[in-house]
Amino acid sequence: MARQERAIRTRKAILAAAAEVFDDVGYEAATISEILKRSGLTKGALYFHFASKEELAQGVLNEQVAALPPVPAHELKLQMSIDEAVLLARLLQKGTGDPIVQGSMRLTVEQGGPKDLLDRRVPVEGWLEHTSALFEQAKAAGEILPHVDLARVVRVFVAAFTGVQVLSSILTGREDLQERVLDFYSYLMSAIASPGVLARLDFTLQRGEWVYAEAMRLHHERENTTPDH
Amino acid sequence: MARQERAIRTRKAILAAAAEVFDDVGYEAATISEILKRSGLTKGALYFHFASKEELAQGVLNEQVAALPPVPAHELKLQMSIDEAVLLARLLQKGTGDPIVQGSMRLTVEQGGPKDLLDRRVPVEGWLEHTSALFEQAKAAGEILPHVDLARVVRVFVAAFTGVQVLSSILTGREDLQERVLDFYSYLMSAIASPGVLARLDFTLQRGEWVYAEAMRLHHERENTTPDH
Repeated sequence: MARQERAIRTRKAILAAAAEVFDDVGYEAATISEILKRSGLTKGALYFHFASKEELAQGVLNEQVAALPPVPAHELKLQMSIDEAVLLARLLQKGTGDPIVQGSMRLTVEQGGPKDLLDRRVPVEGWLEHTSALFEQAKAAGEILPHVDLARVVRVFVAAFTGVQVLSSILTGREDLQERVLDFYSYLMSAIASPGVLARLDFTLQRGEWVYAEAMRLHHERENTTPDH
Repeated sequence: MARQERAIRTRKAILAAAAEVFDDVGYEAATISEILKRSGLTKGALYFHFASKEELAQGVLNEQVAALPPVPAHELKLQMSIDEAVLLARLLQKGTGDPIVQGSMRLTVEQGGPKDLLDRRVPVEGWLEHTSALFEQAKAAGEILPHVDLARVVRVFVAAFTGVQVLSSILTGREDLQERVLDFYSYLMSAIASPGVLARLDFTLQRGEWVYAEAMRLHHERENTTPDH
């Protein structure tokens, strides 16, 4: 394994450990020593990559959007948008989800203290751009009703996802998150999708499970074919 | 002023001071001494009402739904729902809003540490019940399309409000919150309202300003006519 690749893996391991700690106790209460303990790495390795708790937290925030693996291609871009949302909900599941996604989401939603300089706009603007790109393709393909104002509707989708996640955390510890995400997608899609497209969209949990399995399979395939010099 | 009424006012003043501190620094970093300083009351007065920081925070959480003043009556219950959402958005405005609403919202959204036993379900379930009651009246009056599943749609509305608030805080310090709330209401209403009703709903910021002025006027009228024994 090349030195550069090893460095990338170490950086990933540190971010995953940091994200876990941020998710468990929040930014304020998190300590570098706890992050070190979880990562199993040395102080030197950690400080080589991140100079402070703040840099670690910003690193976790910056990885949020990229932590969502691609979903299987589908003829309807709006179906891919539903699939992505359900996959993200699945990765937020306690215990079996993705630590970066979970820790990063907690950091995003928490307002932070007056001295905390974390830039929470990075993941939010990342989701807005990512969703805009997908919805623009959907619009170009005639999947979205002509009167729909994309910039506004994209903000509604990203905001609604955030709120559904907060409510599901409070009420069920995120157990019903996928179902609740499908609820809001089905109502919002019925307000923006062309009638012929709407009838073809699949809002079932079964599809969500299949998308998760497929996305994980593709993800591992890619990881294993990374050139290993 | 009767002793009981004085006690109610003191309790309110303590909760408002506590809410301000929770909004500024979050639950973890908040201290009782800072809350005392802001309230201008004595330690004895505070501890007569609340035994701990946790009780104060739970008190602030429990007041959240009641802190929204009634909106002016309107023939369409769905218009009242829009009016309530815009009024709540107005009360969340930094500087000129309501401290209880603001501090309470921050406490709700933050996950808290592992040792924090705050029950964040109280305000969430409060909003769900409150919104359900209004939407049931709307459904009984034929304002909502027959196929709509009220329990699901109410959760979508409450969740979307929460998320819109989080995003608006991050992106604009809540400056565009009323506008963003009206966006999501207009998209969601177009998915659930009967066509004739939808055409009569007012989603303008101008109406929001009028609702705020009216709600404040009615609120002060009621406060001033409280029997003063």
